[in-house]
Amino acid sequence: MLKGIGASPGIAIGKIFLIEQEELKIECKAINDNHIEKEIKRLKSALVKSREQIQEIREKASTEQRNILEAHIMILEDPELVKTVETKIQSEKINSEAALQTTLEMFVAIFEAMEDEYMKERAADIRDVGQRLLMNLLGKEQLNLKNLKEPVILVARDITPSDTAQMDPEKVMGFLTDIGGRTSHSAIMARSMEIPAVVGLGRITEKIKTGDFVILDGETGQVYINPEEKLVDLYNEAKEKELAVKRGLRALINRETISKDGKKVELGCNIGNPNDAEKAHENGAEGIGLYRTEFLYMDRSDLPSEEEQFSAYKKVLEIMGDRPVVIRTLDVGGDKELPYLQLPREMNPFLGYRAIRICLDQKEIFKTQLRALLRASTYGNLKIMYPMISSVEEVRSANTVLEEVKEELERENIAYSKDIEVGIMIEIPAAAIISDLLAKEVDFFSIGTNDLIQYTTAVDRMNEKISHLYNPFNPAVLRLIQQVIVNGHRAGIWVGMCGEVAGDKRLIPILLGMGLDEFSMSAGNLLPARRQIHGLIYEEMKNISEKVLEMSTAEEIQQFLTEATSQ
Amino acid sequence: MLKGIGASPGIAIGKIFLIEQEELKIECKAINDNHIEKEIKRLKSALVKSREQIQEIREKASTEQRNILEAHIMILEDPELVKTVETKIQSEKINSEAALQTTLEMFVAIFEAMEDEYMKERAADIRDVGQRLLMNLLGKEQLNLKNLKEPVILVARDITPSDTAQMDPEKVMGFLTDIGGRTSHSAIMARSMEIPAVVGLGRITEKIKTGDFVILDGETGQVYINPEEKLVDLYNEAKEKELAVKRGLRALINRETISKDGKKVELGCNIGNPNDAEKAHENGAEGIGLYRTEFLYMDRSDLPSEEEQFSAYKKVLEIMGDRPVVIRTLDVGGDKELPYLQLPREMNPFLGYRAIRICLDQKEIFKTQLRALLRASTYGNLKIMYPMISSVEEVRSANTVLEEVKEELERENIAYSKDIEVGIMIEIPAAAIISDLLAKEVDFFSIGTNDLIQYTTAVDRMNEKISHLYNPFNPAVLRLIQQVIVNGHRAGIWVGMCGEVAGDKRLIPILLGMGLDEFSMSAGNLLPARRQIHGLIYEEMKNISEKVLEMSTAEEIQQFLTEATSQ
Repeated sequence: MLKGIGASPGIAIGKIFLIEQEELKIECKAINDNHIEKEIKRLKSALVKSREQIQEIREKASTEQRNILEAHIMILEDPELVKTVETKIQSEKINSEAALQTTLEMFVAIFEAMEDEYMKERAADIRDVGQRLLMNLLGKEQLNLKNLKEPVILVARDITPSDTAQMDPEKVMGFLTDIGGRTSHSAIMARSMEIPAVVGLGRITEKIKTGDFVILDGETGQVYINPEEKLVDLYNEAKEKELAVKRGLRALINRETISKDGKKVELGCNIGNPNDAEKAHENGAEGIGLYRTEFLYMDRSDLPSEEEQFSAYKKVLEIMGDRPVVIRTLDVGGDKELPYLQLPREMNPFLGYRAIRICLDQKEIFKTQLRALLRASTYGNLKIMYPMISSVEEVRSANTVLEEVKEELERENIAYSKDIEVGIMIEIPAAAIISDLLAKEVDFFSIGTNDLIQYTTAVDRMNEKISHLYNPFNPAVLRLIQQVIVNGHRAGIWVGMCGEVAGDKRLIPILLGMGLDEFSMSAGNLLPARRQIHGLIYEEMKNISEKVLEMSTAEEIQQFLTEATSQ
Repeated sequence: MLKGIGASPGIAIGKIFLIEQEELKIECKAINDNHIEKEIKRLKSALVKSREQIQEIREKASTEQRNILEAHIMILEDPELVKTVETKIQSEKINSEAALQTTLEMFVAIFEAMEDEYMKERAADIRDVGQRLLMNLLGKEQLNLKNLKEPVILVARDITPSDTAQMDPEKVMGFLTDIGGRTSHSAIMARSMEIPAVVGLGRITEKIKTGDFVILDGETGQVYINPEEKLVDLYNEAKEKELAVKRGLRALINRETISKDGKKVELGCNIGNPNDAEKAHENGAEGIGLYRTEFLYMDRSDLPSEEEQFSAYKKVLEIMGDRPVVIRTLDVGGDKELPYLQLPREMNPFLGYRAIRICLDQKEIFKTQLRALLRASTYGNLKIMYPMISSVEEVRSANTVLEEVKEELERENIAYSKDIEVGIMIEIPAAAIISDLLAKEVDFFSIGTNDLIQYTTAVDRMNEKISHLYNPFNPAVLRLIQQVIVNGHRAGIWVGMCGEVAGDKRLIPILLGMGLDEFSMSAGNLLPARRQIHGLIYEEMKNISEKVLEMSTAEEIQQFLTEATSQ
């Protein structure tokens, strides 16, 4: 038995397929002056080829995978990297493979030396892209996981995002890897694809070969190689139970989301691209609570046209039919950069020029998006949502632009739905605090807990040094949530939530108790949340949430909730 | 008449002293291999000398000047800079002056090319330090402004922080400079020293010579060279009026701060080092509302010892006598780095590992400071304040450490005051929102508006792109301030404010109306604030603040206040 880090829950039992990643042997060769041009040309065509490969993979990727793949494309396009390799070829007169490899090693070393965990992880991205680039330079075939014939458990030193994006989930029962932790790419991908995985196993690739039989427990991190039959039976039973639970959940797909005592709420799904909408639909979403349109704008050299946007929005609206689709207007800046917009480098990007702040400053970008949204509105049940609102003035300014665009369309005789609801994200403390004033200006609120917690407690959620302070149970956060719901209801508008808290089973009971109307979460959380709410009594949760709001510390609240909701 | 940028208000009339900064002519000389060591040695001794000079200047500097001088020392200590020059000397075999100059030019160019205004300004720092380094390498005397014989108006291409720190304010009636803007160092320094100044005059250094007579209006930016007598009389009259106002203010030094209808408040001063306490005292401060202890920790290679801290705290307490002195425990991180603590590089330092978060994580640092504070407490009226509190837990943890330190002192038979009040900064939205809970744990609140606005509205106050959103009139900010005061008073504790808003004449009326007990500000604002409060009627301001709190937008509030408080 081996023990690693349980990275994605679930049991897998079956045959191994070992991915042997060959160590690339790069020779350093001196070249003549008249070969310099040729080497640089080779480098450039490898860059183009790598870029094309990644773009192709991206087509079928989920949002999480796209994020990572797009970061990879940005690495390929980083002028610093290319320039350094070119200079090396020229000044040291060496072949492009060697120049590339030493440059990659330097970049990886720089990122690995960084204190910041987030930046540190970028080293893995550079390695992944770098490997692809080198393979292309050497004219070698990339590993292709599309052609697996039977379902297997993959074993590899590491599974890269490009690997996972190409996988057929029907053919991959689980992963095992030598390296990685709970927040490594491979782990995130495994969870997003709902494939059981154990990572950080050390040297499993040396202890195992293709054809070996294993049991993998993604919860506990246990791995059994060629186990006894008794153990296989035991795990088969456990897996059976797991499947039964899953089947139980599948049975809830077309059910309402309603508490024991008849309080109905709406379960929405958060998506990043039209492909995700299919998955939302398959997981019983009653709507899209948050469509993050920024992915339309990322990984390209210019702004998406009105037509491109229109067809993406139309597609999502058509998939969802009558069900509501809340589309959030452009939310870039912060940690999401768009190179072609030349956003300023900021000392504190999370407190910077982003989202509606950019849209109100660069109105042409905003208008194009609003035009595309309005035109798509006739294909379904569209709601428009503005992010990063901190004042009444911003809502009014955004609505003025929206009115202008409507008038334009009317002049051009282009149809749009006349009853589109317009709402805002409540994610800045100021917005929560003046939610009574904001409620008079909009048709709905959606609480963005990720940012709301971050700003309310002044804690960057990516910062590991202070992660203990990023706590949704902080009484200030719960008070703000409650206040927003109360203020929304007083003004007669509905209040949803699209941050991670909405899908957190520890918080769903009190959110229900506080009267939240809509819970929007990732697809994988939908059915468990529905099942949980089926088992809750609204009136009881109301009492519990009232009690919680009188408490002084996060710890006290968490403890009380564990006891109160465990029965 | 010339027109520049009015950088520091006031009128100056008198003779010019032109500072002629010679262009340093640096020759690039090839050196032998066996001179490399010598050149590097020369560089190093110039570094040491420059450092000593700056440190000497720093001794007598005000907090603003110290901040800048400390940034300069950090540039001298930047391994990147020194390394680059050394490598240049070795690889290009040139003299250290030439290697230094080209390196400086490169660094300046890099910083000047940055988008961020804050980083751009660092170029001026590098230029200032670079000039000093080069002068020392060349064995030239540094400009010394200590020896001016009679009061003059200085004219120079630019006035550097090292220049201002050496100036005798009695001998400098005003500045005129070719370059600079309202936020350049020279402008900030002029305001902090209350010396009238006009900057950004283009080529005034070429149009004027020592002995010329000028009138300088630091409000309008007008400069008259050798003006007619009539104009001199006119300006002398204006200057007389200015002085009369100043004398009027001076008469208030020992007065109480009390409204027309008898509401008394306390005017405190914000200080950064013991020298500032003298200035606070001279400006009629009724206490120190904020002593920023971080400057004790900056510009050094290790932590300050308990003794060093003790003597600084003791000095301030002694200067202030019976008057309260609120000393804030270490608030580094964010934009304030301590190289020797090896703080992590963060993506959003304002939302990061800073202040009490560091102290509760690295308790030895915190304990040393608390010991020094407690020991000093017998010399005056000490109050201890924790920064960056976001939860009840943090206050309790900090107080536990404080109790431990008290017990230690008792075991060691070391005296400390038994009635030290302990309070917290309210600068994170969470703290304001749960101020009812926090009020039960502490003896006072001090509202830090700079950060509170920043986090409540999610706007980095240094970010020029979104500076329009950093607005103290945002209704959410005013509501939080009001809420903190109400909650404090309900629990029977006093509530102060030590952010910039406390000294802002536009906001003082409503802060008085809201019931704020203590206003702490920079020394220069104290007497004008006292005069303003003498003219206000508390009961009226109460009504006005109630009306303001019902308004929806910052604009509406600002407009209403201008009208309501202008009579």
